[in-house]
Amino acid sequence: METDSNGLEVLDRAECLRLLSHGSLGRVAVSMSALPVILPVNYLLDGELILIRTGAGTKLAAAARNAVVAFEVDEGDPIGHTGWSVSVTGTAKEITDRDDLERIATLPLPHWAPNGVGHVIALSTDLVTGRRIPYGHARHRATD
Amino acid sequence: METDSNGLEVLDRAECLRLLSHGSLGRVAVSMSALPVILPVNYLLDGELILIRTGAGTKLAAAARNAVVAFEVDEGDPIGHTGWSVSVTGTAKEITDRDDLERIATLPLPHWAPNGVGHVIALSTDLVTGRRIPYGHARHRATD
Repeated sequence: METDSNGLEVLDRAECLRLLSHGSLGRVAVSMSALPVILPVNYLLDGELILIRTGAGTKLAAAARNAVVAFEVDEGDPIGHTGWSVSVTGTAKEITDRDDLERIATLPLPHWAPNGVGHVIALSTDLVTGRRIPYGHARHRATD
Repeated sequence: METDSNGLEVLDRAECLRLLSHGSLGRVAVSMSALPVILPVNYLLDGELILIRTGAGTKLAAAARNAVVAFEVDEGDPIGHTGWSVSVTGTAKEITDRDDLERIATLPLPHWAPNGVGHVIALSTDLVTGRRIPYGHARHRATD
């Protein structure tokens, strides 16, 4: 098991994509008014693309258009302090092709916001890194 | 109840800080090698500062030093599709004052990584925004 300098298990791309395929809630980091902000999004892994549904005319839609954005999914158990995270950096593009949109409409791609149904953004998974907390690591060590 | 253009309830600063005070796992967005990336971090709200523990010499420590960074905490119930998120944009500074570090050592500030015990970063809560999904919003509307 490969570990990084923080003592976390390093996950390979295949394992990262497998973990991404099981999740539905992620976060994207975009720049709004020249300031970074992280927003929660529902997503679906479609092949090696991350599909995100967002409302028409939202700041997210504008910020993520043809931009390099960061995306992250994690799962943590705060009691046992086990968990993993997968971080993606890729290029976001809005899907406008009618055939693509019709196919995506049949996929179980949820949306975070009640009105967030208008646009679909596809994020490439160019850079994918993942970490897992090794089993048995004690969480609270306030006196370290 | 104020809602935004996405139909999400808008949370005020006091409610955002209250929600932040209950969490322990958040995410920060930083720039590494000129690319954005989101990383999970354990944190503690100390007054109106977000304290994050990180390993000595990590990329996170370097990237978050005196930088404007984004931070986010959310909680979602994927079954009922209820949830909230709080997004923070602020300036990160490493805490180096010995008295401050001694006081922080007594706080229940966990760390995500086994070896991540070396440095404490304080993030100001200059910009805080929060959203909550209104009760009763149906999650899956793939045919929208």
